[in-house]
Amino acid sequence: MLLSQEQKEAFQGTNSGTASANDLISLKINGSRLMASLHHSCEFGKAHSYGSHETETGMARLALSNADKAVRQWFVQEAESLGCKITIDQMGNIFAVRPGKNSTAPPIMMGSHLDTQPTGGRYDGILGVVAGLEVLRTLYENDYQSEGSIGVVNWTNEEGARFPIITVSSGVWSGHIPLDLAWNCLEITPSQDGNRYTMKEELERIGFLGVTPASYESQPIAAHFELHIEQGPVLEHERRKIGVVSGGQAYKWFEVSIKGRDSHAGSTPMEARKDSVLAAAKMIVESNKIAKAHSGLITTGLVETEPGSINTTACTTRFTLDMRHHLDSELANIEDECLTTFRRIAAEDSEAGVLVEWQQLAANPAVTFHHDCISVIESAAEDALVDLPKTANDGKLWKHMVSGAGHDSFHTSRRCPTGMIFTPTREGLSHTPSEYCSPEDCALGAQVLLGAVLRYDKFRMERGMLA
Amino acid sequence: MLLSQEQKEAFQGTNSGTASANDLISLKINGSRLMASLHHSCEFGKAHSYGSHETETGMARLALSNADKAVRQWFVQEAESLGCKITIDQMGNIFAVRPGKNSTAPPIMMGSHLDTQPTGGRYDGILGVVAGLEVLRTLYENDYQSEGSIGVVNWTNEEGARFPIITVSSGVWSGHIPLDLAWNCLEITPSQDGNRYTMKEELERIGFLGVTPASYESQPIAAHFELHIEQGPVLEHERRKIGVVSGGQAYKWFEVSIKGRDSHAGSTPMEARKDSVLAAAKMIVESNKIAKAHSGLITTGLVETEPGSINTTACTTRFTLDMRHHLDSELANIEDECLTTFRRIAAEDSEAGVLVEWQQLAANPAVTFHHDCISVIESAAEDALVDLPKTANDGKLWKHMVSGAGHDSFHTSRRCPTGMIFTPTREGLSHTPSEYCSPEDCALGAQVLLGAVLRYDKFRMERGMLA
Repeated sequence: MLLSQEQKEAFQGTNSGTASANDLISLKINGSRLMASLHHSCEFGKAHSYGSHETETGMARLALSNADKAVRQWFVQEAESLGCKITIDQMGNIFAVRPGKNSTAPPIMMGSHLDTQPTGGRYDGILGVVAGLEVLRTLYENDYQSEGSIGVVNWTNEEGARFPIITVSSGVWSGHIPLDLAWNCLEITPSQDGNRYTMKEELERIGFLGVTPASYESQPIAAHFELHIEQGPVLEHERRKIGVVSGGQAYKWFEVSIKGRDSHAGSTPMEARKDSVLAAAKMIVESNKIAKAHSGLITTGLVETEPGSINTTACTTRFTLDMRHHLDSELANIEDECLTTFRRIAAEDSEAGVLVEWQQLAANPAVTFHHDCISVIESAAEDALVDLPKTANDGKLWKHMVSGAGHDSFHTSRRCPTGMIFTPTREGLSHTPSEYCSPEDCALGAQVLLGAVLRYDKFRMERGMLA
Repeated sequence: MLLSQEQKEAFQGTNSGTASANDLISLKINGSRLMASLHHSCEFGKAHSYGSHETETGMARLALSNADKAVRQWFVQEAESLGCKITIDQMGNIFAVRPGKNSTAPPIMMGSHLDTQPTGGRYDGILGVVAGLEVLRTLYENDYQSEGSIGVVNWTNEEGARFPIITVSSGVWSGHIPLDLAWNCLEITPSQDGNRYTMKEELERIGFLGVTPASYESQPIAAHFELHIEQGPVLEHERRKIGVVSGGQAYKWFEVSIKGRDSHAGSTPMEARKDSVLAAAKMIVESNKIAKAHSGLITTGLVETEPGSINTTACTTRFTLDMRHHLDSELANIEDECLTTFRRIAAEDSEAGVLVEWQQLAANPAVTFHHDCISVIESAAEDALVDLPKTANDGKLWKHMVSGAGHDSFHTSRRCPTGMIFTPTREGLSHTPSEYCSPEDCALGAQVLLGAVLRYDKFRMERGMLA
């Protein structure tokens, strides 16, 4: 998208140049092997069965849990068997790199994450990492010598479901999030022993606290490609196969604490209460109206009450806010209006008044991906989709899209050319056990990933970027 | 209140009869000893310091916790040192009975509870039990021979804060709640080891699972008197000292479960969501409006979300409802309107729709206490207050009141004459660490309790109820 004619010609040259087009087209990922590998990896942390088939379960593989430890060990073993060199950084990010002809320049990385939501599915993040391994397997079995090195990275705690900073470890890598903040981030709900552990404690416990600095300077990346399920209904609805992602929504996360007073539910008149639950409920209702009025998104996924007793008004209610918009300016408007409205509710519309505290947990501006990455993905998609029936109304099997969800690629895009590929998602459902992308669509996505990475490998050689 | 002239004369006869009036008036409880005993008992489970003085803390003595076990052992030891016989029933209710001249007739019992809210205070329930002990100490040190037996009962899990059935154990005693239901009641939040235990398991663990059937038939009570803090602002505001409780509000408890769908917060359009949190928030806001419109009370003290993740809509939200009214008919109206409104919100006003489940946890109709008990409390209050400055506008230091909170006395009133005495509560605050009743007011309450119990003891002898 948005390429000059000169740039387009350069890419066409890349695609049909001396060493490339036929080689690239002849390499095919193995779809059956890809799915076998994906479902094998999901044995670690599978949960929430929803059907009779053994793969009809969701996942509960929270970051740095025992299940996450197990799948990380599996990932390292798989990558080593393909001749990769493994580097683990201070955030437990695992970089598996297969050397190219030039093995000193920074690698092209295919990155995503192996952690899941507590009631997550088998594709979000997992598909991107496992497809990266499948690309490396395809190169390995074909003895393919890439120009530069190519690898796969598993980013730690992308979901932010256990440690409440989303894409925290790519954020540290990019320099956007301080290491200490990430290391000291406490899990959002206590562990089974009743304690809350930090990311650093849990990295150490599972043996993935590396010594390499988590930084784009220590561990540079030439370009970052991420294959991911769309997590929305658009591709399925429009009967397309691939989304070429041009960028992502701006989003912010907040924790809102309402401090009221605990008092007896039977003997405290309504007008004498400082009822934190009632105030929070009003805020949640109003915040939804505000987001809708701006055509944005807002979500409260977590509510906690203290002391949490039936016949006592809660002294404290905490809730989270996830707000998103594809325009930074509109996100700022949603945030401002929520804050103003919450203060009004706290002061005027909650009986005897409550206090409201408002803490930002994450902030990411809208993202635009790199035209070079977008271009090689477009070319790879054209190739991969060329022989398929043209199911979409306009006949086009891929389209440009804006990502609704946050991804590690948002952080990498600050430090290296980055692009993303979307695959269809059944009913648009994600972050739920029955999340699904068909084997055919997973294979198509992996094929586009392969094509994009190899095109970029040629491209940077031809542009002298490996010198 | 509501006594016939004949009844009033009967009581006047009691008060000025042969054996009674002077004896009764000469007995005085020891206020310092009462407070020392109360604060000593609060060493077990004290928590939530709010000031510099050692007694400026609240309590966290959840039913059948280790702290509750310790205070129960202390209570048994104290009562035994006053010559009491101890009976522990199947619900862990502890009956400590000091024999009277006639020790075969059922005892008059002074009852309340030693368990507290998780962020409770030092007076709710505790004052009633400890004042009962102080009454027995006063009889003991004066070698007072009562006509019938007199005792103190500690009812298990009155608060319903840990095991979510309020006044569950007096409810089993009265035959209102089945034993199995109570025994199998699970604690509302898991124990530190992550498991949820039943009442029976915890009774057994702390050594208070007795063999005596928990029943008014096996353990009959002649009359039940409960001293309790008001837990509301009325007495303090009107500068009165004693509330003579004529009865209690009707109340019901519910757990409401909203089933939606977990989906990604960034890629699921607002109109495609089944957002259980948003639906619950709307229901909480509306339920408050409904209760207010009927001059009733409603409280949501506990909200839980699953899976509880920042960037995933919650598939399930559970919340509690505590609704109260002094008229059974109005409580029924509040309940009906809430249910209708919740169903409408679930179906029409929550995006793509959610399911609502509605489970009743407790139901207690409005209660009217026994005129004999009310009458002896009135007489005892008149005596105890006679020499105090008349601070109230109308000069009257006691008044009839309706209890806003639920109490074990509501259950006992089904099976024996019952009455309650209220003391002032600072700022009307209860179920909070800084809950407070002054030493002078505690002593006045205990003095009224003593006077009421001894009057009733004479009364039943003179009426031939000990034959």
